[in-house]
Amino acid sequence: MSLDQAATGPLDRLAAHLAEDMAAVNALIRARMASEHAPRIPEVTAHLVEAGGKRLRPLLTLAAARLCGYRGEDHIRLAATVEFIHTATLLHDDVVDDSTRRRGRPTANLLWDNKSSVLVGDYLFARSFQLMTETGAIRVLEILADAAATIAEGEVLQLTAARSLATDERVYLQIIRGKTAALFAAAAEVGGVIAGAPAQEVAALRAYGDALGICFQIVDDLLDYEGTGKTGKNIGDDFREGKLTLPLIKAIAHADGDERAFWERVIETGRQEDGDLERALRILRGHGALEAARADARAWAERARMALKALPENDTRLILAELPDYVISRIS
Amino acid sequence: MSLDQAATGPLDRLAAHLAEDMAAVNALIRARMASEHAPRIPEVTAHLVEAGGKRLRPLLTLAAARLCGYRGEDHIRLAATVEFIHTATLLHDDVVDDSTRRRGRPTANLLWDNKSSVLVGDYLFARSFQLMTETGAIRVLEILADAAATIAEGEVLQLTAARSLATDERVYLQIIRGKTAALFAAAAEVGGVIAGAPAQEVAALRAYGDALGICFQIVDDLLDYEGTGKTGKNIGDDFREGKLTLPLIKAIAHADGDERAFWERVIETGRQEDGDLERALRILRGHGALEAARADARAWAERARMALKALPENDTRLILAELPDYVISRIS
Repeated sequence: MSLDQAATGPLDRLAAHLAEDMAAVNALIRARMASEHAPRIPEVTAHLVEAGGKRLRPLLTLAAARLCGYRGEDHIRLAATVEFIHTATLLHDDVVDDSTRRRGRPTANLLWDNKSSVLVGDYLFARSFQLMTETGAIRVLEILADAAATIAEGEVLQLTAARSLATDERVYLQIIRGKTAALFAAAAEVGGVIAGAPAQEVAALRAYGDALGICFQIVDDLLDYEGTGKTGKNIGDDFREGKLTLPLIKAIAHADGDERAFWERVIETGRQEDGDLERALRILRGHGALEAARADARAWAERARMALKALPENDTRLILAELPDYVISRIS
Repeated sequence: MSLDQAATGPLDRLAAHLAEDMAAVNALIRARMASEHAPRIPEVTAHLVEAGGKRLRPLLTLAAARLCGYRGEDHIRLAATVEFIHTATLLHDDVVDDSTRRRGRPTANLLWDNKSSVLVGDYLFARSFQLMTETGAIRVLEILADAAATIAEGEVLQLTAARSLATDERVYLQIIRGKTAALFAAAAEVGGVIAGAPAQEVAALRAYGDALGICFQIVDDLLDYEGTGKTGKNIGDDFREGKLTLPLIKAIAHADGDERAFWERVIETGRQEDGDLERALRILRGHGALEAARADARAWAERARMALKALPENDTRLILAELPDYVISRIS
C-alpha cells in the first residue's frame, strides 16, 4: 500500500475522527512514561512510543467509548493503559525473540540491552495498572488484568510450541488469541464498559476486538512470508525461529515424506542452510497454504464486521466496520 | 544462625502465630499459579515458590491485618498478591543479573531459559493484579500498583548505577527503597488499609515496612561480602557484577590513590583477576566499611521498631517488634 492510499485509509479516518481524544492520550502517555529517578526509562520508552506505531489498540478503546456515547474522561486513561500494556509486551517480546528490528528501527534490546527492556517493560506494566486504577472502575480492572494474564499465557504457549511440528491450528488459535487478540478484545470491551453500555453491546465490542485481533495476527504471520520489507519486519524471521504460524501449519498438514523430513530438519532441529527459506516458500505455495491462510484472515474480518451489527449505528461504527478491510489490505 | 536457633526465631513465631492464614495463602498461591493452557508456567513457578522462601512479605500483610483487628478474608488475597509480585521480580532479577543460584538451587533462567523467566514473570504480575482486583479496594490497588512501579524504577536505577563509582549513599538508598523496601512497605500498609485502620496506624505500618525492607537489603548486601554460603547466594556476586552496594560505597568514599585505581579497574572497567575479591575485602575491612554498614542496618532496625509504637499493643505487634533483630542476626 502506498502512503497516499494509507492517508485515506480507514485507520487514518478513525484517527482523524478521534483526533482530539488521541491527542489527550498521547499527552498522557508522554507524561506517564517519565521517571523522576531513572532517566533510562523514558529513553527506552520514547524510542518505542515515538517510533510511530499505529496506535490501533488505544483507538479501539476511544472508538468503543465514543460509539456507546461516553462523555467522560476515563476512556483517555484506558486508551493510554492499553498502549502501555502493548508497549510493555513489545519490549519483552523482542527480548524473548532476540529481535533486532521493530517498526523499521533497531529494537531497544539491541540499542540498550535485554536487561533494560525487561525492567522498562515491567515499569510500563506497573504504570498501566496505576492508570487503570485511577478510573476506579473495578469491572474494567478485571478485564484488563485478565487480558494481561492471557497475553502472558499465550506467549508462554508460543514458546513451548516453537519447533514442535505437532502444533496444530487449534493450538495456533489459542496462541494468537492470547498474545494478540486478548488485548484487542479488552481494548474494545473496556470502552463499552466505561460508557455503561448494555451487556449485549459490551459483548459485541469484545467479539469485534477478538475477531479483529485474530485477523490482524494471521495477516502479520502471512507478512513474515510474503511481506515486502515495508512493514519494518525482517522477512523469514518466524521461519528462522522455528515459529509454527498458520501458513506453516497448513503446509505441514499436507507434507509428503520428503517435505516432512525437510520440516523436521529446518523447524524441529533448527539446522537451516542457504536456500531453505526459498524452498519453504515453494512448498507453502505448492500446497496453497498462503492462500488458505489469507482466506482464514478474510473470514475473521467478516466475523469482526458481523459483530458490529449489535451496536448503535453511527459514524464511529461505520469506520470500525472498515478496519478489518484495512488489516486485510496489508496482504492484498 | 543454626537451624535450632531459627526454629525458635521471631520469623517462625510469626509464621506459627499466623499459621492458619498462611496455609490459606499457600493454597491460594498454588491454585492461582496454575495455567490451563501453558504447563510451563506452573513448572517454573513451582520451582521458585516451593523452594522454601521465607514468605516474609505475605506474613507482613497478614500480620498488619491481624494487628489492626481485621476479620475478613481479603488479607489472604493481598498476601498472595504480594508473594506473586515478589516471585515475578525474582524471576526477572535473575535474568537481569544472569544469576545461577537462588535460595540454594539453580535459577529458573538456568533450568529453563531467560525467555521462560521473562514471560512467567509477566504472567505472575498479571495474576497478582487479578488477585488484588478481587478485593475491590481501590486504595489497596493504588498502593500495590505504585509499589510495582517503584520496584521497577529501583531496578532500572540499579542497572544504570552499576559500575559507576559516582554512586553514593543517597542513590544507594533510592535503589534499595525501590527494589526492596517498596514491597515491604506496601505489604504492611495494605494489611492496615484492608482492616480499615486509622491513617496514623496505616502510616506507621508503612514506615515499619520501609525501615525493615531497607534493613533487610543492607544485610543482604553485607552477606554478599561476608556470608557463609548457607544463604544460598554466591559470595562475591555483587562485586563481580560491579554492583555498588553500601560496603563498597563506604570504602570508595575513603579510597586513596592506589585503591581508587583498583576500584576503577575492577568495578568501572570490570577487568577482574584472581585475588581481586580478597583484596577488595581487605580494603573494606581496613576502612571499617563492613562494620559501618552493619551499624546502618542496626539503625534502620531501630527505626522499624520505633514505628510500631503508634500501633495497638498486642501479641502480633510484639512479634513484629522482634523481626528487625532476626534480620540483623543473619550478619551477627
